[in-house]
Amino acid sequence: MSEPIFRRAEQADLPAIVAMLADDILGQQREDTRMPLATSYVHAFQAIQADPNQFLAVVELNGEVIGTLQISYMPGLSHQGAWRGEIESVRIAQSARGSGLGRKMILWAVEQCRARQCRIVQLTSDLKRVDAHRFYEHIGFTGSHKGYKMML
Amino acid sequence: MSEPIFRRAEQADLPAIVAMLADDILGQQREDTRMPLATSYVHAFQAIQADPNQFLAVVELNGEVIGTLQISYMPGLSHQGAWRGEIESVRIAQSARGSGLGRKMILWAVEQCRARQCRIVQLTSDLKRVDAHRFYEHIGFTGSHKGYKMML
Repeated sequence: MSEPIFRRAEQADLPAIVAMLADDILGQQREDTRMPLATSYVHAFQAIQADPNQFLAVVELNGEVIGTLQISYMPGLSHQGAWRGEIESVRIAQSARGSGLGRKMILWAVEQCRARQCRIVQLTSDLKRVDAHRFYEHIGFTGSHKGYKMML
Repeated sequence: MSEPIFRRAEQADLPAIVAMLADDILGQQREDTRMPLATSYVHAFQAIQADPNQFLAVVELNGEVIGTLQISYMPGLSHQGAWRGEIESVRIAQSARGSGLGRKMILWAVEQCRARQCRIVQLTSDLKRVDAHRFYEHIGFTGSHKGYKMML
């Protein structure tokens, strides 16, 4: 069995990442997978790569991209000046769901946060993703907060 | 009546900001207000100021700092490459609570996010802060997510 490889995303990974973002019960209404990809995705990718406090990761297995997530490292004053790592946009390709990859990805992301001296790791999950909630609680997260969004 | 002034925090504001972080039912156990301030606060402040995607704000009234919040601007691929603005560490001095300042601060932060072309504004609030939840819903946020934390 090959082991999945975790690495920083490259621009060539964009179509695979956007396809995963779209292949999701919530994401399918809000993404645009038409090729060539909308320039808004390319500009966002460039902004992520230019920011040393953003890490867009992909997981590769046998040359295929099967997962993605983004970590945002945020300095802050609270908790005596603790850095936070925020995990966003976690997606796994259909072919790899149910394989335990999600667990590996989140634990990997937590280790990245630890290596960057973060003292808090945080994420939010849509209230509709009940299975994800069980999963996050199982691996040691506490669902202590309510997450609010406003679309502009 | 003077109007509150919103501005970027300076290092001289740190004691007032840390005092507000600590003067809170949840924050009082996790902050250290002893002077001189722990260097961890100073280092965190310097990291915030050095990052163009972080904005630590204070609100000043008659020369006194009465409020603080931080905005983190995050590029991301989802929602067709939407920038997000995340509001963190919102605190108001005892003397200014119940004055409508919280509403002004959050609406001001939303306008900062709009000016930076964010299409999503997000924040999390501890489940214990029930009054804050009513407030966020009242000003147009949707409590659509569960917020998870892991302390490292």
